[in-house]
Amino acid sequence: MNNHILLIDCPDQKGLIYNITKILADNNLNIVKNDEFVDKSAKHFFMRTEFSGKFEAENILTELKEALPETVNIRLNPKAKKDIVVFATKEHHCLGDLLLRYAYDELNANILAVISNHNALQPLVAKFGIPFHYISHENKTRSEHEQATLKALQIYNPEYLVLAKYMRILNPEFVNLFPRRIINIHHSFLPAFIGAKPYKQAFTRGVKIIGATAHFVTSDLDEGPIIAQNVIQVNHRYSAADMSRAGKDVEKIVLARALKLVFQDRVFIYGNKTVIF
Amino acid sequence: MNNHILLIDCPDQKGLIYNITKILADNNLNIVKNDEFVDKSAKHFFMRTEFSGKFEAENILTELKEALPETVNIRLNPKAKKDIVVFATKEHHCLGDLLLRYAYDELNANILAVISNHNALQPLVAKFGIPFHYISHENKTRSEHEQATLKALQIYNPEYLVLAKYMRILNPEFVNLFPRRIINIHHSFLPAFIGAKPYKQAFTRGVKIIGATAHFVTSDLDEGPIIAQNVIQVNHRYSAADMSRAGKDVEKIVLARALKLVFQDRVFIYGNKTVIF
Amino acid sequence: MNNHILLIDCPDQKGLIYNITKILADNNLNIVKNDEFVDKSAKHFFMRTEFSGKFEAENILTELKEALPETVNIRLNPKAKKDIVVFATKEHHCLGDLLLRYAYDELNANILAVISNHNALQPLVAKFGIPFHYISHENKTRSEHEQATLKALQIYNPEYLVLAKYMRILNPEFVNLFPRRIINIHHSFLPAFIGAKPYKQAFTRGVKIIGATAHFVTSDLDEGPIIAQNVIQVNHRYSAADMSRAGKDVEKIVLARALKLVFQDRVFIYGNKTVIF
Amino acid sequence: MNNHILLIDCPDQKGLIYNITKILADNNLNIVKNDEFVDKSAKHFFMRTEFSGKFEAENILTELKEALPETVNIRLNPKAKKDIVVFATKEHHCLGDLLLRYAYDELNANILAVISNHNALQPLVAKFGIPFHYISHENKTRSEHEQATLKALQIYNPEYLVLAKYMRILNPEFVNLFPRRIINIHHSFLPAFIGAKPYKQAFTRGVKIIGATAHFVTSDLDEGPIIAQNVIQVNHRYSAADMSRAGKDVEKIVLARALKLVFQDRVFIYGNKTVIF
Repeated sequence: MNNHILLIDCPDQKGLIYNITKILADNNLNIVKNDEFVDKSAKHFFMRTEFSGKFEAENILTELKEALPETVNIRLNPKAKKDIVVFATKEHHCLGDLLLRYAYDELNANILAVISNHNALQPLVAKFGIPFHYISHENKTRSEHEQATLKALQIYNPEYLVLAKYMRILNPEFVNLFPRRIINIHHSFLPAFIGAKPYKQAFTRGVKIIGATAHFVTSDLDEGPIIAQNVIQVNHRYSAADMSRAGKDVEKIVLARALKLVFQDRVFIYGNKTVIF
Repeated sequence: MNNHILLIDCPDQKGLIYNITKILADNNLNIVKNDEFVDKSAKHFFMRTEFSGKFEAENILTELKEALPETVNIRLNPKAKKDIVVFATKEHHCLGDLLLRYAYDELNANILAVISNHNALQPLVAKFGIPFHYISHENKTRSEHEQATLKALQIYNPEYLVLAKYMRILNPEFVNLFPRRIINIHHSFLPAFIGAKPYKQAFTRGVKIIGATAHFVTSDLDEGPIIAQNVIQVNHRYSAADMSRAGKDVEKIVLARALKLVFQDRVFIYGNKTVIF
Repeated sequence: MNNHILLIDCPDQKGLIYNITKILADNNLNIVKNDEFVDKSAKHFFMRTEFSGKFEAENILTELKEALPETVNIRLNPKAKKDIVVFATKEHHCLGDLLLRYAYDELNANILAVISNHNALQPLVAKFGIPFHYISHENKTRSEHEQATLKALQIYNPEYLVLAKYMRILNPEFVNLFPRRIINIHHSFLPAFIGAKPYKQAFTRGVKIIGATAHFVTSDLDEGPIIAQNVIQVNHRYSAADMSRAGKDVEKIVLARALKLVFQDRVFIYGNKTVIF
Repeated sequence: MNNHILLIDCPDQKGLIYNITKILADNNLNIVKNDEFVDKSAKHFFMRTEFSGKFEAENILTELKEALPETVNIRLNPKAKKDIVVFATKEHHCLGDLLLRYAYDELNANILAVISNHNALQPLVAKFGIPFHYISHENKTRSEHEQATLKALQIYNPEYLVLAKYMRILNPEFVNLFPRRIINIHHSFLPAFIGAKPYKQAFTRGVKIIGATAHFVTSDLDEGPIIAQNVIQVNHRYSAADMSRAGKDVEKIVLARALKLVFQDRVFIYGNKTVIF
């Protein structure tokens, strides 16, 4: 897939598709795939185009900006492979799944390093030859721990941070350094069971489904824009531990699906929601 | 299915299955289907047996009570077809689905009457020849409205009340008159989106799944024991109204499944949970 | 939703979206919703546009035909509510579900009549005040039976025939009279279990899922273009009869979903496949 | 889970549960979990019991054999951790998933070795320190290749062979050496798309769901007893390659689920079906 990618979002107005496709046509470019959406309540327009042909990026951008509303967001050919750092704690299933996909170049991303507040996962990461930073949170305030983490991150300058079952709450100060760039997997079908121990909560409530949610992290815990969710059926025979075990497969698949969507530049964030093509 | 049904739950202790099956074997009865479960955290035993053969109910019950813990609950051959009254407001999909199933005797229940706080569904109910009680809530306090409802219910003496999208909150005083005998369909995957307008809430939160939950009604709104749940995938293209439309099919199927389980005597309630065989 | 609808499919070539949206923009029409797809293996382009504004249909069609390949198919504002005749045999669940939706104007269609080779469903249809034609197949050849059916159909001149568990195989001669206009619900996840008694086949094969498929009928039995499919989990406890019972809910929901898609003009048929927006 | 496990299947007759639980009770053993099922069409009884307490295996077996029909199958405390050899070809996703689970002791099995007809997966297997046998099929007849494979297997004497996307058809002579001991993952929802290239077949047929099936291998290709199946929704936008990519996650989860069931001794094979507790 060596097509070019163009992502546009702006206030809705008449003729947007025509104006955009005219510029592509005038430049002799061929649209291979196109998706648009208008959020009627927000009166906002979203478009993702894959096209082929040769062009000068500067020219196209200038033409687009002239033809579109002033407040338009345009992304033309975002970096095809994202640089990421993965955060984990002790659980291996999400991290292991990502390492495998990365090893076979199926992630649309480079895993630059893994950071963990425990060293349990060091041997797993070592198998894949990726730097592992063990940054214990013990005897540190949350801020001190995050400062140590930031120091490690400086080496890598990642585009995205992926929280692959990272069992730490992040301060808003940390989150705000990476706006719309931190992706978390939460082990419940949000907004149910926000916060700690969702499987314990699910067991206590006696639900008949459990699930997982991948979302962007904002300063409100578990409240950020949702990217992907899925569930599985459970029943009275599941203890909280059984739910936790059964949920792992949902968690890893939902996280991988969300990352694929984000890293293929299919996701727009608007307000607290996502538009996904 | 003309088997006999025996439902037992009691504190767990050694030899329960043996003690129970011994009594059935000694009475020359043949077990056709058997399910047991021990809730380990509650140390409580549940068993549902379908068996064939001739017997004196009194004798079996006496033998069982002698052999089992003092606090045992035993139900032997509960009434095969439950008498129910269905409550609805303006939406037809759950009610219509139940009426169709009832018309073809697929509900394990007799719908004695339909009660509604609006008269919109009267023509639908009339097609099926079932009494319809329009009891408006206008110009009445909640208690006055429930008193009027209770008066109508007196005619029928139903075993279960089924709230098929009944858009009224019930006072605890009313609920407590029908302990474990009111079944509701809530249009979200509980415990997410408790309360009013769950689809509006789901739209605002930007979830990627919506669902429905059938549960027993307790005095805590939307907090009673869950019987059945299911979900469907949605995306950014769904307005709150689209979610509501798409959710209707989940709602009616989940409610019908829950009623089937309850009316076939497959459901134990224990604490705030259900054990379902 | 009083938007206009434009459906176009034609061989793919450069600039199609631009050419089409230009005509809409030049006519001062506003695109509300747009979907396109290019089938790369078939090199065929599909587009569905919802737009608002005033226009002369003749003018727009002329302009479109001039701007697009010669072999283009254009549908502009197809009839909003389709005229249909529903076929059924003895099972009520699909028919009943459609009658309920029709009674509340949720079907995007007028059910002109119901035709059945049995009279078991006459009382159900009568509840909804719709003509019912009992055309027995007994003592008739398949062709004779279909001739009698065609005679009944002449009164109604329906756009679509909906086979809602119509347990008769249709002769190619009959099918060819209604090309792409007969929709069937088959009680298996096609192409598994083609032909008679799919639940019996599923039971014998010991599958862990069962399902249903809504498809257009062609002269090859159960081989026509698929519109919608869904499945449910089963296990060894399901007899063939249990599967049949459990499958009914999937059947009726899948059929209703397929009809909604077709009657909202969201479905293109191309070769033996569907493109659905 | 340090309970004992007892698996019994035999022709159905009156009093089986009582007879079995009596022996356990007489030996002062405590049933922790119990499941039974009677296949009515086959008139066959299945029971799986988890129990705690001390006992002499010989005594229990003797008592059971005396009390039960002559043709009974009894398994008492089958080996808790199965010895397995995994077969793969070039695709890593199922193998990688199993290696990760094995590395964290979540497989109820020891992977003794991996055998492949290609050497592409050697580096992956090496990461986990497991013997890898590259046995090319080139310039060999199918029988010669299988002889070479058998030779490698002799070192390990595995209880189960797991075909984790092993793209080779096995001769009946080979299969018959491992009756009910070869487990395969097929990349379709069987019985649809038997044989080669199921995703290509699915694409050509235009299905709206794809899936995967884990099953025991018999001498009839893709016809053995099914253990687990699952599906995902697809649409016209999926090429055969897209289906293949999307299907990989279903394949690996379905295979892992099936292995968990088999290796926890929850699966009975009867005729061409499975009974799973």
